[in-house]
Amino acid sequence: MREVSTVSYMSAVDIKARKKALKKIERAFSKLVKDILSGKTPTLVIRKRTLANTVFDAERGLLRIGNATLKRSFLNAGEAKKFMQTVLIASIIHEALKNDEYPTIRDLYYRGKHTIRFRDLATGRVREENTWDEQKESDSVIRDLEVLIDMLREEMLILSKEKGKVVGDMRIKSGDDIIDLSKMGHGAYSIEPTPDFIEFKDVNAEFVLVIEKDAVFQQLHRAGFWKKYKALLITSAGQPDRATRRFVRRLSDELGLPIYILTDADPYGWYIYSVFKVGSITLSYESERLATPSARFLGVSMIDIFGSDKLKKKPYLTEAERKNYIIKATDTDIKRAKELKSYEWFRTKRWLEEINIFLKKKAKLEIEALTSKGLRFLMDTYIPEKIETGDWIA
Amino acid sequence: MREVSTVSYMSAVDIKARKKALKKIERAFSKLVKDILSGKTPTLVIRKRTLANTVFDAERGLLRIGNATLKRSFLNAGEAKKFMQTVLIASIIHEALKNDEYPTIRDLYYRGKHTIRFRDLATGRVREENTWDEQKESDSVIRDLEVLIDMLREEMLILSKEKGKVVGDMRIKSGDDIIDLSKMGHGAYSIEPTPDFIEFKDVNAEFVLVIEKDAVFQQLHRAGFWKKYKALLITSAGQPDRATRRFVRRLSDELGLPIYILTDADPYGWYIYSVFKVGSITLSYESERLATPSARFLGVSMIDIFGSDKLKKKPYLTEAERKNYIIKATDTDIKRAKELKSYEWFRTKRWLEEINIFLKKKAKLEIEALTSKGLRFLMDTYIPEKIETGDWIA
Repeated sequence: MREVSTVSYMSAVDIKARKKALKKIERAFSKLVKDILSGKTPTLVIRKRTLANTVFDAERGLLRIGNATLKRSFLNAGEAKKFMQTVLIASIIHEALKNDEYPTIRDLYYRGKHTIRFRDLATGRVREENTWDEQKESDSVIRDLEVLIDMLREEMLILSKEKGKVVGDMRIKSGDDIIDLSKMGHGAYSIEPTPDFIEFKDVNAEFVLVIEKDAVFQQLHRAGFWKKYKALLITSAGQPDRATRRFVRRLSDELGLPIYILTDADPYGWYIYSVFKVGSITLSYESERLATPSARFLGVSMIDIFGSDKLKKKPYLTEAERKNYIIKATDTDIKRAKELKSYEWFRTKRWLEEINIFLKKKAKLEIEALTSKGLRFLMDTYIPEKIETGDWIA
Repeated sequence: MREVSTVSYMSAVDIKARKKALKKIERAFSKLVKDILSGKTPTLVIRKRTLANTVFDAERGLLRIGNATLKRSFLNAGEAKKFMQTVLIASIIHEALKNDEYPTIRDLYYRGKHTIRFRDLATGRVREENTWDEQKESDSVIRDLEVLIDMLREEMLILSKEKGKVVGDMRIKSGDDIIDLSKMGHGAYSIEPTPDFIEFKDVNAEFVLVIEKDAVFQQLHRAGFWKKYKALLITSAGQPDRATRRFVRRLSDELGLPIYILTDADPYGWYIYSVFKVGSITLSYESERLATPSARFLGVSMIDIFGSDKLKKKPYLTEAERKNYIIKATDTDIKRAKELKSYEWFRTKRWLEEINIFLKKKAKLEIEALTSKGLRFLMDTYIPEKIETGDWIA
């Protein structure tokens, strides 16, 4: 094997990040060494990532991990395997950081996967045990490590596939390059998997429009939406990944830009909005950095489709358009809507109204149905009108 | 509704493309007008897009549409609906081109979807007929139109979601911007849905590496692979879309760069390679512009995993690594492998060997299994060694 260093090709940001992550891991695990040296049983104390330990922090408007903790002790038969897995993943990541590597979570699963042979002290027989069999086991341990050392995996230079894109009148520094997001032609800038390393240089935009669907993003970008309305245009291309969520959160926090989210009018779209806004339940420990509590649901809303006598709001669709465009909700849609209705952050007057219309009409609508009314309708009527009149759901 | 033109935000390339597409549609359909004026039954003659009319052109190394045609006549009861659909889609696209819009195929489905009421001359009753009920109907008619006027939908400014990304030492012009693909920081350039409009300005690269998996692309990009080995690095993020295929083809044709494709070692990966290389069966009429017959399958090959006594080739994996990394093939994998074996372009000595090893071992491997041996192994041993020694499958 040729021994060639990759260091010279690494960005200055990455070199700095490696040092920081190494230090954090070493500090967390030096406690174990101390335990051993002083004759104590080495034990890890980690906050629980269970549903019961997930709290909706109404004041801050996001999901948080609670304070309940679990212990993983080396000398407890029930905890020994998890203890071993946690130490194993930490040592693999530590090694990767030292070797200037960029593993993915799939890599880490493979790197750690092996069989341990040991003598069973009770029977005297040699037995075998796999470190793990499936990726969900190693993924779970990576999350434990994130909680334990209070550091997201991205900060440990663990990469992942990345779907989010952005265009707009803004300059950023990523790696060693300055990138002008207003000079992407018909293409777009694909956000890096580690958006915390991005430096915002300057921006000339009044709001951020996040679009669920890549194809609609392409249309609005191509027609010059972001130039005309001074927007940053982002697509999550479906369910948002961690990097897109963090990028949006930073735009909100650091630049103070209002964030509008545009999805299909269905429970799946609402869930996408919910993940951007309060975080996801299974990964509540990330929400403190990934959620954007100020995010607004711009549409498409049920009232946009059907209107509301109570709110004196006319629908954007005619009876004939509704007949052509509306899709019948599936059983899964309805089940999901009922689930969302039980979440605290959906129990506002306006959201309950929205969900109830859906459950009554059993109807959903795709954004494309609006584009089919003409791209100008979406671009020059629907979106700007709703933003100007504050016709969004918080 | 505000009447605001979007023209001023359109790129010069798009303005030119609109004119060209309008002219082509008008020319094709003026024949119908002539038919009517001269008392003939208006009839469209379109090449068939059936499996039977799909030919593997061994000399050129790609799938082609054959010469069999079908007729769609307005006054034939069995053809009238398809005739109407074809004219309808053409008129919607024509309208969109004139209005400076950028529809997607989903939009076009919605735009054309409506109910036609007519009097049944036989019974005298009023009946209703939908233009179409499902998107696959309108999609099929769009493909007919592409064949009829010999113009890909992208050239008619019909957009779509787009997954392909690229980085490397190359400058392109897209829209009105010059983009330096070597200055993307840790992110990447997301290819536009209409890659024929891209202008290649200058390039400093010796080959193109196309990677199936976005996460592996991120790793190699971040570690500086393309800088170190003078490569253009591309990911298709799974099954390649039309734009990524066209972009790769143009890099091959116009810049004469060798194209290497890196996928998982499984029939799904082989199929991705096959789509890049010869095209897809259902869309054979596109292959003349989307396929890259010179593309090479770099790996991961079955021989890389298991070695070959016949070829005197040692495997890249040790016995222990195989034990840890190999995944058992599913029934679907095996069915797909047998299917591929029947395709003419897979019936080469080397490919049959590859498929037979797979069918014998019933084993597959992910690229990530190689990355887990260390990113340097993939970057500094596996890929460059295979390219240098010509260890790829044509």
